[in-house]
Amino acid sequence: MVNETQHSCSASSSSRSDGGSSSGSESSKDNSRCSTPVLDADRHERLREKMRRRQDAGDKWFSLEFFPPRTANAAVNLISRFDRMGAGGPLFIDVTWHPAGDPGSDKETSSMIIANTAVNYCGLETILHMTCCNQTKDDITGHLQKAKRLGLKNIMALRGDPAGEEWEEEVDGFNYAVDLVKHIRNEFDDYFDICVAGYPKGHPEAESYEADLRHLKEKVFAGADFIITQLFFQPETFFKFMKDCQAIGITCPIIPGIFPIQGYHSLRQLVKLSKLEVPQEIKDVIEPIKDNDAAIRNYGVELAVSMCRELLDSGMVHGLHFFTLNREVATTEVLKRLGIWKEDPRRPLPWAVSAHPKRRVEDVRPIFWASRPKSYIYRTQEWDDFPNGRWGNSSSPAFGELKDYYLFYLKSKTPREELLKMWGEELTGEESVFEVFTCYITGEPNRNGYKVTCMPWNDDPLATETNLLKDQLEKVNRRGILTINSQPNINGKPSTDPIVGWGPSGGYVFQKAYLEFFTSSEIVTALLKVLKKYELRVNYHIVNVKGQNITNAPDLQPNAVTWGIFPGREIIQPTVVDPVSFLSWKDEAFALWIEQWAKLYEEESPSRMIIQYIHDNYYLVNLVDNDFPLENCLWQVVEDTFELLN
Amino acid sequence: MVNETQHSCSASSSSRSDGGSSSGSESSKDNSRCSTPVLDADRHERLREKMRRRQDAGDKWFSLEFFPPRTANAAVNLISRFDRMGAGGPLFIDVTWHPAGDPGSDKETSSMIIANTAVNYCGLETILHMTCCNQTKDDITGHLQKAKRLGLKNIMALRGDPAGEEWEEEVDGFNYAVDLVKHIRNEFDDYFDICVAGYPKGHPEAESYEADLRHLKEKVFAGADFIITQLFFQPETFFKFMKDCQAIGITCPIIPGIFPIQGYHSLRQLVKLSKLEVPQEIKDVIEPIKDNDAAIRNYGVELAVSMCRELLDSGMVHGLHFFTLNREVATTEVLKRLGIWKEDPRRPLPWAVSAHPKRRVEDVRPIFWASRPKSYIYRTQEWDDFPNGRWGNSSSPAFGELKDYYLFYLKSKTPREELLKMWGEELTGEESVFEVFTCYITGEPNRNGYKVTCMPWNDDPLATETNLLKDQLEKVNRRGILTINSQPNINGKPSTDPIVGWGPSGGYVFQKAYLEFFTSSEIVTALLKVLKKYELRVNYHIVNVKGQNITNAPDLQPNAVTWGIFPGREIIQPTVVDPVSFLSWKDEAFALWIEQWAKLYEEESPSRMIIQYIHDNYYLVNLVDNDFPLENCLWQVVEDTFELLN
Repeated sequence: MVNETQHSCSASSSSRSDGGSSSGSESSKDNSRCSTPVLDADRHERLREKMRRRQDAGDKWFSLEFFPPRTANAAVNLISRFDRMGAGGPLFIDVTWHPAGDPGSDKETSSMIIANTAVNYCGLETILHMTCCNQTKDDITGHLQKAKRLGLKNIMALRGDPAGEEWEEEVDGFNYAVDLVKHIRNEFDDYFDICVAGYPKGHPEAESYEADLRHLKEKVFAGADFIITQLFFQPETFFKFMKDCQAIGITCPIIPGIFPIQGYHSLRQLVKLSKLEVPQEIKDVIEPIKDNDAAIRNYGVELAVSMCRELLDSGMVHGLHFFTLNREVATTEVLKRLGIWKEDPRRPLPWAVSAHPKRRVEDVRPIFWASRPKSYIYRTQEWDDFPNGRWGNSSSPAFGELKDYYLFYLKSKTPREELLKMWGEELTGEESVFEVFTCYITGEPNRNGYKVTCMPWNDDPLATETNLLKDQLEKVNRRGILTINSQPNINGKPSTDPIVGWGPSGGYVFQKAYLEFFTSSEIVTALLKVLKKYELRVNYHIVNVKGQNITNAPDLQPNAVTWGIFPGREIIQPTVVDPVSFLSWKDEAFALWIEQWAKLYEEESPSRMIIQYIHDNYYLVNLVDNDFPLENCLWQVVEDTFELLN
Repeated sequence: MVNETQHSCSASSSSRSDGGSSSGSESSKDNSRCSTPVLDADRHERLREKMRRRQDAGDKWFSLEFFPPRTANAAVNLISRFDRMGAGGPLFIDVTWHPAGDPGSDKETSSMIIANTAVNYCGLETILHMTCCNQTKDDITGHLQKAKRLGLKNIMALRGDPAGEEWEEEVDGFNYAVDLVKHIRNEFDDYFDICVAGYPKGHPEAESYEADLRHLKEKVFAGADFIITQLFFQPETFFKFMKDCQAIGITCPIIPGIFPIQGYHSLRQLVKLSKLEVPQEIKDVIEPIKDNDAAIRNYGVELAVSMCRELLDSGMVHGLHFFTLNREVATTEVLKRLGIWKEDPRRPLPWAVSAHPKRRVEDVRPIFWASRPKSYIYRTQEWDDFPNGRWGNSSSPAFGELKDYYLFYLKSKTPREELLKMWGEELTGEESVFEVFTCYITGEPNRNGYKVTCMPWNDDPLATETNLLKDQLEKVNRRGILTINSQPNINGKPSTDPIVGWGPSGGYVFQKAYLEFFTSSEIVTALLKVLKKYELRVNYHIVNVKGQNITNAPDLQPNAVTWGIFPGREIIQPTVVDPVSFLSWKDEAFALWIEQWAKLYEEESPSRMIIQYIHDNYYLVNLVDNDFPLENCLWQVVEDTFELLN
């Protein structure tokens, strides 16, 4: 009988699917439809749901804690650390709250702005810590409103250290973390996921371990969704704590806080702050090697790995929370040895997504910002809705102006001196610029022996995918076709392909060949003659800094250049060449010549004038070969152009 | 210099593209984006724009005039004539207004409803005639409002014949067509395109030819967009008229009305009504053969072809308007001989579009209604917006109930007696039903010698595309897999492919293999076991009339099964398998067993009980093979199922 073999319908949660024999009509007359295919459940769930789903699936996970940096330069470095450590697949990161450091301000080093950057620009699920003691209700509400506005969805509610020793409870004030939890639930309903701290040895200021457990239960019953513990040195400490929690009715997830010992001094400082006792057997190992950082770190890694294994093997622990101290090596090593660092080369989409809730549906972007996703996110941050399904006919993509090239998360990681070494202390002509582009492509050192590892349009070395085109790119850059973006054509490779794959497995990905470059007006003149031969096959946009615009795009329509076909899903087309957005990108691309390159040199210097000349006279060109199943013809177009010039 | 070779930018009509060096930011903060790619300009232009575009392109075109039928049966036939003649590519059709026949009513034979059907269900650009004399302003406004509501966009404004001889001008009444033109422009602004009639010999009631020309000019200056002329017999008549019009400043398009003589009596009647004189040389030919219909029609075709050639060759005429008298043969023949009948096997989309303005953006539909597009349009007529770009996650596709299976434009063209001959006067068991399905697939006569040219789910013979699957379909239908819809997989065929192509040229079309059938619960039980092997590759939905629903579709997401990639455009994905809509389709598909088949037989008769049994006990199954680049595995799935059963 069919009834016996009936699968559970995947729609069983919806009353509609089992809706008996009614005539299939819906009571609702509302036809509005959400065009969001669930490509990546992670983008649509709240943190507590992700946690539950991972636990149900038996998936082990980790999270990473960072503190806000002291200087703007340190902030730039922290953000690139977010990008690197984000690649390992943390379930979330969290950013601590430093009341002394103006944590809710707009400074680039504030907790608020670092968390904002992590969410919006690095695409990381992020918890912002927040402390409440010695703060007014209005201050706290203001911080929470700001966090919400910035797209933060998770708060770690803490009391914080009272300023000074003579702290006393304030009547109706925020004296304990539980007051903050209640306040968040009162004022923001269920908007935020709330995390609270648990102390496996009891809070140092609590009357007793038992009293502290009761406080924890109060926090959970006031609305906290899960618990992260203070660090501890022995797994038994955690197991006992967890059982004691369960015994008094705490059922939410409890995530052990892991502190890989990374050095003698940092351990001492942390121990002092947290008022924890280091077990004698650890002291016995560390004291003799206290001046050997490498030895201590190795020991710390061993210790952490062994403790984490024991925690995970117990079956009671599904996720591990790491206090990184803003360092990378030890934590990454522990995670890799545990096998839970999951550097998945497969991406949900070909570009880096943002974790702001209003961008959850976003699944189409112009290809132009492929190497500058943070700039794209910045310039579209004011949009109320984001393209999904299709880009549409671009009636009004209002890009914010990019006046401030020094927004810290857009700033080059490379200092000026190094840039000069890479791009030339002194330029002798347009050819020396061609050389810089060529060295960036080939990876060979320049004439002064320095490798060119970044360009104004790309702060990272050449992408693996672009490597596929390396030989051709080298050839054309040498001759003054200065490429800044490209992709090969792809006619249905598996979505699991390590180089060009993206999206869920079992699908196929496609691309139209794309080439974008700066070049002289002489070359453009020849190119346009050549393009006549390719009129039906190649779409082009050619523009100079003044906005003179030459194109054969039909009716200003966007051209989809990357798309994927997946089992049981609608088509996803994440990148387009959009004629209107190209004019906004053009402003940015031309400005980078000046802001990032020309300004390295003295005003009026010959080097600066060469870059200025290129900026003023070159054209920015993009070409799409629409015939993706055939061999890419764009190299032939360029070849023909050079031939015409000779 | 580039400036000299600069193409005219295709965006030159938009100030944005030539926007100088401003920073690419838009003054508008409005981010709303229209997701409509211009796949087919025809769907987005108003009639007068289409006319202009065709003229600019030097394209010759034609249009067809029909009158409303007298009976419901005649209406059914007229609608299928619209479908057949629509295939030749008329720029528009028009429907005359018969004041005596309650033309604005909801009767299936009214001018209003016939025009409505042409626009909405046949996808034809349509002009509704409207006369004004002897009608109140409120009546006329009411008709116009209704026309607008139904999606009609063009009105032919006429005076109409005064009722009775003693007609007198009413003060402030609608005495002439010009009053109606003014009224439309006053009350509906520029919403409608307005056509008026021109009389190459002068209106029979006008004081003079010159006076009539002045009246025509008044109509044009009051807001008419173009002129269709009364019929005439000699090209010189039209040339003179056109020159005279131009001489007094009439510059809008003037379309000659062509009347292919189809019979002696219809000619006489028309001549009487229009008070025209038939030239002696025509009379001389016709009189001797007046009882030979075929001879007269042949002569009429010759005459029309030769006159049309002269008109077109003059360069003054771009389009020809045919008075069809609701007949097909003569007009089609003239058009074919002129070479302007353009039966383009290529379709803008794989399904028949509707011409209602609010459906202009529609470019995605569930595959289920592939053979019943009119039913789909009917059941979605209340929707406020239509899916474009993506179907979306179907949060609420509120399909109208299909209670009335006898809506005339959904009614089978085939009479009951013929259906009985095809589907069996007497059924002896489920196997005799299998036979009917098999004969429909093979095209072979059934055991009584009748070919099965339609089925309850498909009023037409097998589609060319389905023919590709004929052998396999035959095999499975014989064994009780009763197929009602299917498509082969396609991995990138040219969009110009005569069988599976659609959309603009230069593109590539793709499909996932699809199979939909009714089958017994015994077969479903085996099928479900087999499907476990194909879990990752095949998506399925299996449902019975009671709504019991078995599926492996992830999260109720739609699966795109037809899509196309075109030069310079976003991806188009016109058909999806949508899990939620399938439940509405299920109601319709099951009901057709009863409404169209069971009810052919007496109540309680064995034949009727057999169909009722199938209706009550069979399942409706759909299968999608997601691996479109590989060989279609659905036949193997069915094969494995049969093997399991043996």
